[in-house]
Amino acid sequence: MERGTSRPGGRTARVREQVLAAVVDELAEHGLEGLGVDGVAARSGVHRATVFRRWGDVGGLLADTFDAAASDTWTPPDHGSLRADLEALAREVLEYVGPPESSVRALMGAAERFPRAREALHRFLDDRYRRSAVVVERAVARGEVGASVVPRQVLVGALGPLYHHLLHLGDSPTEADAVAYVRMVVGGLP
Amino acid sequence: MERGTSRPGGRTARVREQVLAAVVDELAEHGLEGLGVDGVAARSGVHRATVFRRWGDVGGLLADTFDAAASDTWTPPDHGSLRADLEALAREVLEYVGPPESSVRALMGAAERFPRAREALHRFLDDRYRRSAVVVERAVARGEVGASVVPRQVLVGALGPLYHHLLHLGDSPTEADAVAYVRMVVGGLP
Repeated sequence: MERGTSRPGGRTARVREQVLAAVVDELAEHGLEGLGVDGVAARSGVHRATVFRRWGDVGGLLADTFDAAASDTWTPPDHGSLRADLEALAREVLEYVGPPESSVRALMGAAERFPRAREALHRFLDDRYRRSAVVVERAVARGEVGASVVPRQVLVGALGPLYHHLLHLGDSPTEADAVAYVRMVVGGLP
Repeated sequence: MERGTSRPGGRTARVREQVLAAVVDELAEHGLEGLGVDGVAARSGVHRATVFRRWGDVGGLLADTFDAAASDTWTPPDHGSLRADLEALAREVLEYVGPPESSVRALMGAAERFPRAREALHRFLDDRYRRSAVVVERAVARGEVGASVVPRQVLVGALGPLYHHLLHLGDSPTEADAVAYVRMVVGGLP
């Protein structure tokens, strides 16, 4: 989830980018307890009334951060095998959500508190899984796996454990762990 | 995670039980925004000063709720096969964390906001996974799976996707989904 790459140009798009960048920076600097519309406005250089009018509150700011991320141009990897593609996806999760100072991780934690932000997080991840389904569909087309597999289940089966580690178990899975989860999902246990 | 079953008897144990039950009830009734030490004290019938002295704040109350749950007598299922045991564990996750009005789910969401509560959640789940490791160890002893498997990885691989669904994707996996995750982890893809 890289910073929003909405259509460039236009004052509105620029303001949105500045404000959402400030959300991430304020969250990183002050944590959720210190995140407020006023601080975001001050840091972004956008007028406080504009921020209030357009985003309403912290929940609205967090929600729009996810919505902006969901409108990027990200595409899933294509390395020629299901295992390699799932491993690449898993590495992306570790890269973006893994580091303790990860802004995505902070945003996911913060979203829990605001219904609108939580729904935007759901939409963001749902969109990622929909875009990633092609990874499984290509594997089916190559005859690597049967046509009965459910792409989303394969993806959530391989990546869900990493989110569970990072967000609920509080430990940091390594790349070897990520590879192990992919291996289990694709090939089962030895 | 059923309500604390700490050693019975003793006023201290009784007070703890009353207070932690009130935490769950207040959270269910008012949500995290409406959860406060005063409300918990009033509902539990325990003196406010006692609650403040012993638990400090909402984070302390939430943390102790997880710690109490971790000191119960829960043991994992033993149905004679790895798949059956993992499916039974998955059904427990669905039963306790699945329902939208689940108190465990509310507690997990709330814990995200308080470092002490978050650490207690990590301890609670870690304890559950340690107790559940025997499910995999028995399968190794029966020769069902190779001795090289890492019990915790198998458990997190099978159950992690359910927590990811419930807490991050906002959808409700069915028992069929849970069975599918277990099947993938144990037997791989068709």
